Amino acid sequence: MTFSFEKIAQVPGGSARRGRINTPRGVIDTPAFMPVGTQGTVKAVLPEAIRELGAQIVLGNTYHLFLRPGHELIQSLGGLHRFMNWDGPILTDSGGFQVFSLSDLRKITEEGVSFQSHIDGSKRSLTPESSMAIQKALGSDIIMAFDECIPHPADRDYVIKSTARSSRWAKRCRQAHPAGSVGALFGIVQGGMHEDLRRRSAEDLIDIGFEGYALGGLSVGEEASIMYEVMEYSLPMLPEDQPRYVMGVGTPENLVEGVRRGADMFDCVMPTRNARNGVLFTSFGKLSIKQARYRDDAAPIDPLCSCYVCRNYSRAYLRHLYQSKEILASMLNSLHNLHYYQDLMAQMRQSIELGRFEEFRREFYALREAGN
Amino acid sequence: MTFSFEKIAQVPGGSARRGRINTPRGVIDTPAFMPVGTQGTVKAVLPEAIRELGAQIVLGNTYHLFLRPGHELIQSLGGLHRFMNWDGPILTDSGGFQVFSLSDLRKITEEGVSFQSHIDGSKRSLTPESSMAIQKALGSDIIMAFDECIPHPADRDYVIKSTARSSRWAKRCRQAHPAGSVGALFGIVQGGMHEDLRRRSAEDLIDIGFEGYALGGLSVGEEASIMYEVMEYSLPMLPEDQPRYVMGVGTPENLVEGVRRGADMFDCVMPTRNARNGVLFTSFGKLSIKQARYRDDAAPIDPLCSCYVCRNYSRAYLRHLYQSKEILASMLNSLHNLHYYQDLMAQMRQSIELGRFEEFRREFYALREAGN
Repeated sequence: MTFSFEKIAQVPGGSARRGRINTPRGVIDTPAFMPVGTQGTVKAVLPEAIRELGAQIVLGNTYHLFLRPGHELIQSLGGLHRFMNWDGPILTDSGGFQVFSLSDLRKITEEGVSFQSHIDGSKRSLTPESSMAIQKALGSDIIMAFDECIPHPADRDYVIKSTARSSRWAKRCRQAHPAGSVGALFGIVQGGMHEDLRRRSAEDLIDIGFEGYALGGLSVGEEASIMYEVMEYSLPMLPEDQPRYVMGVGTPENLVEGVRRGADMFDCVMPTRNARNGVLFTSFGKLSIKQARYRDDAAPIDPLCSCYVCRNYSRAYLRHLYQSKEILASMLNSLHNLHYYQDLMAQMRQSIELGRFEEFRREFYALREAGN
Repeated sequence: MTFSFEKIAQVPGGSARRGRINTPRGVIDTPAFMPVGTQGTVKAVLPEAIRELGAQIVLGNTYHLFLRPGHELIQSLGGLHRFMNWDGPILTDSGGFQVFSLSDLRKITEEGVSFQSHIDGSKRSLTPESSMAIQKALGSDIIMAFDECIPHPADRDYVIKSTARSSRWAKRCRQAHPAGSVGALFGIVQGGMHEDLRRRSAEDLIDIGFEGYALGGLSVGEEASIMYEVMEYSLPMLPEDQPRYVMGVGTPENLVEGVRRGADMFDCVMPTRNARNGVLFTSFGKLSIKQARYRDDAAPIDPLCSCYVCRNYSRAYLRHLYQSKEILASMLNSLHNLHYYQDLMAQMRQSIELGRFEEFRREFYALREAGN
C-alpha cells in the first residue's frame, strides 16, 4: 500500500474533516494525535500500551536520535521500528525545531545549521540533505522537510528571510527525497504570524509538491487567539486532498480549534510531560495531583473517564505515588493523559462523521466551564 | 479459606521442598519469591504485569507506609490491596528493619523504638503493638512480628540481649494479634551468626506459636558462606509443617542455596533495584547494560530467556534507554529481572516435584561458569 489520504466526512458548511491516511505500515484515522517518542520511546509507556490507547502513529525526533544513539546504529539494527518495538507508522521531525530550542552556538547558513550537541558539546551540523538521509536511515514513514522554526515574536524582515530560506531548503529536501521514494515527505509552512508570508510559504511548497503539508512555527509562545487566527487563514491554503498537520500543538482546546479549522494531525509532548509533572487532563479541565486536597480522595482522576487508570486507582493513591517520586506515578499519569488525548480525537472523529461536531465542541467547553 | 501450608514434595534425602500456602486472598506456590513494593508499588511495574510474571504475593513496607501516606489513610480508602490495585496476598514487614537502616536518632527501649522520620525529621515510634495495628490497618495477609534486625558484625553480648528482647516483643505481637485473627502472623528468628543463639530464638518463638517462621538478620553484609551456614543449621530448627521465610535474601545463588536448605519464601529489592541501575540477571550471570560493548548488540539480554523484554528488545536499545535516562529503561529492566527471579523459582519448584533439584542446581552453576 502506498501513501494516500482519503476524506471520509466533512462538517457541512465547516472545515472539520474526518479522514484516513494509508501508509505501508498501517492506517491512521484522522484527525489524529501522535504521541511523541523523542528518544525512541514515548516516555514511561510501553509500545503495546500506546497501541491499546488507540494511537496509530508515533513521532520520533531526528535531532535526538541523530546525536544518540546515532541513525547509522539504528539503521544497522533494522531501523527505528524494530529498535523501539513499534510496527505502526512513525513520523519523524526534521531536527530543525530541536536545533533551535536545545543546542548551543548554532549558526545558520544557506547550507544548513551547525551547532553544538546539548549532550556532549560536540560540533554537529544538519542540512536539508543530511536530515533526509537521517530520517530515511531511521526508516520513517512520514519524513518532515528541514526548516527553521521561527521564534515568536520575530522581526518581519527576519521572518521573510527565514521563510524564503526554508522554501529553498524544502526544495533541496524534495530533490534529496523525490516523489515515489519510500516514506512520504511533508513540507512545512512557515511565515510567522503574517498571513501574506504564510501564503507565500504555502505557495512555494505547493509548487514543489509534497505528500502532505504542515503548519510549523506555532505553539512558540503566541496567544491562543493568534494561533487560531493563523490556523484559520493558513489551513485553507493547503490542498484539500492531502493531510494537514499542525506541528507541536497542543492543549485539548488547541486540538478542538485546530480540527474545527481543518487540521488532520497533531503532536505535542504535553500529555506525557504534564503527566510526569503530576498535571492530569480531565473532562473538567486540568488537575494537579500534588495538591493536598487529593490526599484522601477516593475518586478517580476523571469520573467521566473509562481508562485503565481511572478504573483502578484513586486520586489519593496517585498523589501518594507522585509525592513519593515513584516511577509508577509517571507511568499511570502518562497512560491517563494519553488516553485523554486519544479519546478526545476519537470523539472528534465520531462527531464529524455524525455531523455533530459543533455540538461536541459546545459540550466540550460546557464541561470545562462546569469544572471552574 | 484460612491460612495453611501444605507440603507437596520434598527432595529425597534433602531439605528442598515444594509446597503451597493457602490464604484467603489466594494461593502461593513455594518456594516463592516476593517482589518488594516498598511504598505501595513494586517500582516501575504495573500490578497486572507482576501477576503476569507469575508472582502470587508482594511485600509492602510498614515503615514507609506508616510515614507516608499513613496507615489510617490507606485503611480509610479500603486497605493496601485496594490502594495499590493488587488483589493477591500481601506480606508486610514489621517496620523494624527500616527503622534501623533508614531513620535517624533511633532509641531502643523495652517498649519499642523511637526515631526520626527520614522524610520530614518528625519524631515517631514503633512498638510491637503499634506495628501490629499498622499492619492490620493495611489489611496485610501475612504480618511480621516486630523485631530488631541485628547488624553484622555484632558483639555476642549485644546479640544475646537484642534477641531476647525480640523474643519478648514477639510475645507482645502474638498477644496483640492472637491466633485466629485475620492475617497470619510470622515470628522472626534472630540470634546473629551464632547457632546456639539462633536455636534459643527459634525455641522462644515456637513456644509462643506462629503461623509461620522467618530467618531475620541475614543479608546484612555477611559472607555468603556464613549466610548458607546459618540457613543450614537454622532452617531445621523450624516446624516442618509451616512456611519458612528467609528475609531480605537475595542473589539468585542465595535463593538456590536457601531452597536447597529448606526455605519456602524470599524477598529482596535486588531484581528491581539492580534493574534501575542497569544491572540485569541472565542465565550466564549478571550483565551491566551501560557497558560500551552492548552499543550495537542486537541480541536480547539473555538468549535463553523468553520474557517480553527478551522477545522484543535488543541490548543496544536497552543500553540506549539507560544512557538516555529514559523511564522505559527502568520499566523494561525491572520486567526482565523480575521475570528472571520468578522463572528461577518456577524452575526450582518444578525440579523439586520431578525429583531432580540437584541436577537443576548443577546446571544452574554450570551455565554461570560458562558465562565467565
